[in-house]
Order: sequence, then structure tokens, then C-alpha cells
Amino acid sequence: MSFLIGVDVGGTKVLAGEVTPDGRVVRTVTHRTPGRRVSVTALEDALTAAVLEVADGRTPLGIGLAAAGFVDAAGERVMFAPHLPWAGEDVRHRLAERWGAPVTLDNDANCAAYAESRLGAARGVSSALMVTMGTGIGGALVLDGRVLRGANGMAGEFGHMQVVPDGRACECGRHGCWEQYSSGNALVRLARARVVAEPTVLTDLCQGQPDQLTGPMVTAAAEDGDLVARQAFSSVGDWLGVGLAGLVAAFDPAVVVVGGGVSAAGDRLLDPARAALGRSLVGAEHRSVPEVRAALLGPEAGLVGAALLAAEPPSRG
Amino acid sequence: MSFLIGVDVGGTKVLAGEVTPDGRVVRTVTHRTPGRRVSVTALEDALTAAVLEVADGRTPLGIGLAAAGFVDAAGERVMFAPHLPWAGEDVRHRLAERWGAPVTLDNDANCAAYAESRLGAARGVSSALMVTMGTGIGGALVLDGRVLRGANGMAGEFGHMQVVPDGRACECGRHGCWEQYSSGNALVRLARARVVAEPTVLTDLCQGQPDQLTGPMVTAAAEDGDLVARQAFSSVGDWLGVGLAGLVAAFDPAVVVVGGGVSAAGDRLLDPARAALGRSLVGAEHRSVPEVRAALLGPEAGLVGAALLAAEPPSRG
Repeated sequence: MSFLIGVDVGGTKVLAGEVTPDGRVVRTVTHRTPGRRVSVTALEDALTAAVLEVADGRTPLGIGLAAAGFVDAAGERVMFAPHLPWAGEDVRHRLAERWGAPVTLDNDANCAAYAESRLGAARGVSSALMVTMGTGIGGALVLDGRVLRGANGMAGEFGHMQVVPDGRACECGRHGCWEQYSSGNALVRLARARVVAEPTVLTDLCQGQPDQLTGPMVTAAAEDGDLVARQAFSSVGDWLGVGLAGLVAAFDPAVVVVGGGVSAAGDRLLDPARAALGRSLVGAEHRSVPEVRAALLGPEAGLVGAALLAAEPPSRG
Repeated sequence: MSFLIGVDVGGTKVLAGEVTPDGRVVRTVTHRTPGRRVSVTALEDALTAAVLEVADGRTPLGIGLAAAGFVDAAGERVMFAPHLPWAGEDVRHRLAERWGAPVTLDNDANCAAYAESRLGAARGVSSALMVTMGTGIGGALVLDGRVLRGANGMAGEFGHMQVVPDGRACECGRHGCWEQYSSGNALVRLARARVVAEPTVLTDLCQGQPDQLTGPMVTAAAEDGDLVARQAFSSVGDWLGVGLAGLVAAFDPAVVVVGGGVSAAGDRLLDPARAALGRSLVGAEHRSVPEVRAALLGPEAGLVGAALLAAEPPSRG
């Protein structure tokens, strides 16, 4: 049976999977990523171990890599990745030689967007704006089934659009970036600030240590009716919609798809985003406001998209 | 000799021209637009008079309309135009019947962007972000020689992206829109506020009446070394670059082209924009920052682009 392998290379783990040519995940394996401080060799050894485990002695049709970093426009190199040791290496070519199989390489958000457009929440639509809310905000635009990669391969870096002049300091060195107001980090920051001031369900969840609070804890507390957690989602969701309104004015996509870890909260995140989008979008009375949908493929979207891209003819622009 | 006609339908005038199939303007005629308060019939009569004058008894290969308004995704209807009486009419079909020639219809900013990508500042590049600074900010994205029209035909409405939360009130009914900080209107507003407080070269130009001040006066005063006018350009140019940084992070275009009336100031506008773009663009150290170029085709860009689109096969998506 012919099969593909998709590999999602994140800052803390490698998720690799066997994928059928029509995009079904047969099985996955997880390996820990050695992290940024180790060598390129150690990282690539870890990827190789994951690929060999999935292949189990068979030869795949192709192997797709989804990398949490900036991939050049040609899909050959990881130019920079905050949590990985690659910095300009010709990753695609080197791993293709090592693995003896065709390899494709793209940014993880691009891969996830491609998977959602082929099989998930954006299936069958002419254009989709995909926003991935994890630690920060990433994303991609899919037009007629193709991911817009950009002249540098860097299209879709939505998280660092400035939304507040002289606003909150961002890890990128600038101020007022969108992801400072709408992301997993923003959600946790808002909840932490309140937990310090007053005890809530969250205080128990983090065992009285606000710095141990995580996004999934805030999601769980909101489910349980905790007001602090719910207000954090309202704020992050509202800012999500404000930023989406700008992107929708610019791109005019048929649908908006929100994925990433924070989107596990579903309508608790998306309802305030929809309200803010409707309120903030110019000309909303003269146009259709795009539907805001939750992503469907979950944490496997990146590896599925990478695997599907590995089955494509090489001439995507 | 085969020829095309391009018609730029603005809020105050109609600029129509004979255009060769390779995009050269042979001659133009200007008719006044009756304005929004008159009937659709009066407007279409004025367009017809302009087209007949250019045609001069000959039959064109096609006639392209560039309209200052929202055109639907199919290129058939003007859905809404703040300064024109059309509101959902099937303009393209009706005028094609009346004129006995193939007619195409698109938004004026889309037409100008298409012309710049075929013959002007974005010629030969894979992707271009075009920003048109007039009264407000319009624009378009050109990818592989095609203008991104969007699901509603409304892509490129950059001027109403929010850049300041609870910022300046905008004519659109929202607050803090980009064009409140970077546009011809913003330029004049900044200059007026200062002229009221202290006499400058501008005081003479507007004969002591700040409400008579225009954008071209501010441009002229800046040329003459007037500090108030120069500071107005610095501010508008800086905000231009901040907004461009967000759009470049999202689209990653090969070049940025700035057109529209305000761009007549050239580097006085573009230099502060380039500085702000370099400062505000995320990952500028890991990518090429796109060149910011002045548009080349001037006020005829819209009619040239419309004419060239009229020569295209009808299947643009």
C-alpha cells in the first residue's frame, strides 16, 4: 500500500505520522525535540528516528516536513526558527538524500492551512483566511487551493501586525503586536493577573501558583463557569475579531478558519470574535461577512498538510 | 487600427481615453460627473458622451470601466459607491448593450494596480502590494499578474484597518482607521490645525482661510521648505510605513507601490514610510524588506488598467 509521511517539527516535540494519499492519518508517533540549544545533527537524528519508526521498513511516496519557523520561498531552507537550531541550512535537500525519498518543506501554519483547505473547515471554498492561535498568532491565506507563500516565503505572519501604537512590549522587540492581545500567551497573562488579585477556580487549578497557570487550565476553568477565565476569553476573542476585520478588509476571503491550541475553546473564543468582526469590518452592510469557523483537523493538521504537499507535483509557486 | 477605451469614473469627473492594445494612451477627454444626487441615467449619459467622443465614429475592441466604488466579485455590478448614484445595478451588461461593444468593470484601485503591474512600477515582479493614497487609502494585491478580487470583490480595502483603538472618528462610522492617520485628508487636517495656530507659507497659499487648504497646497509648501507642511508629510509617511508593515507581514509582496494624489510628493512621503516599514516589520533581519516604489502611471493608471482588462479573456477569477 502506498503511503506518505508527514512530520510536524515543533519547539518541544516531533509529531510524525503515516498518512494515506487521500489524507487519512493511519498512526502517529511522538518524539521529543532536543530544543534550540542542541546541534542541527541531534535534531535531524531525532527526525530520522521518528521517520524510520513510522516507515517501519517500507518506503513512502514522499515525506513532508512542517517546521515551526521561517521557510524560504523555494521551500528548501529553514531561515530562522525561534525554538529550533536551523538557521539557513538546506534542510530539504539534505534530508531527502539521507532518507532516500522525496521531501517537501513548508512552514507549519502553511501546512495546517493546506490540510484544512483540502479536508477540513475550508474544504470546497474559493479562498480562506486561516489563523492559528497558539502561543502567538500565525496563519496563512489559501487562494484557489494554493497557500500564498509570499516573495520570501513569509506570508501569513499576522501575529506581529501592530494593533496598539506604543502598546505592550512583544518578544519580537516591537510594541503593540496583535498576538500580545490575542493568543494563548495573552489568555494566560490576563488570567494570571486576576488570580494574583482574587482567588478563583483557577487558583486551585494552578495550586496557588499563578506562574504555573496554562492555557488549557484557563479553558477548563471557563468550562466550569469561572468568571475570570471567561472574561479572559472575551478579551482575547474580541481582539481576535478586531484583527480579523483588518485582514478580511484586505483579503476578502470566503471563510475564516481559526485553529491552534486556543481554538479548542470553540465558541467561547469564536463568538466574541464574530461579534467584533461584524462590528469592525468596513462596509459590512454592503457585503457578506465571512463565516468564522473552528478548524477541524486538530493538532494533526500540520503533519497531514505536509504529507499532502509531499504528494503534489513540485511546481507550486 | 484596433484600439481600446478606458473610462475612469470618479466622484467629480469622468476621465476617458483611447488606449492601444499594449497600453499606450493616445488621447483623453474629461467630462464632469453629475455627482451622487443625480440619476443613474444622467451618469450613464455622461459616460456615453465621453465614450462617443473618444470613439469618434470607430468601434473599439473593448471598453473598460474603472469605478470609484465597490464592484461585485463577478465584475457585473457596482454595489455601492459613496460619490456615485449606482447601488447594485447591473452596470456592465447594460452599458455593453448600449454601447454595442464588450465592456468590463472593476474597482478603480484594482484597475490602477493592474496597469502598474503590466506597465508601471510593478512590471515584471511576481507580487505587488499597491496602495493608493488619495482622499483615503485604497489598494490592491497583484499576484502573478492577477489582481486579487476577493470573495465579494472587496479585497484591498486597506484604509479601514484599525490602527488606533478608540482612535479618530472615521467617515465609515468606526474609529481609528488607518486612513485617518495616513491619507490626503489626514495631511490636510494636520496642516490646517497648525495654520490656525501659527502663520506659515501655507497661510498665504490658502489666503488666510485654513478650510480652503488642499493637499496640493501642502505638497507645494513642503517643496518650498515650509516646516509645517514637511512635518505633516513626516507624520502621514510614518503612519503609511506602520500600516504597510502589517500588510507586508501578511502578504509578503515582492514590492510595494504607492500611488494616488498624495504620492505626487515622492520621497517626501515615501522616505518616512520606508523608515517606518523597516522599523515595524517583524523579522526584518531574516528577510528582504520590499522596496517601496512610487507609482509610474499617474492619474491615467485607472483608465489604462480598465482598458487592458477589457482586452483580457473573460475568465479572470
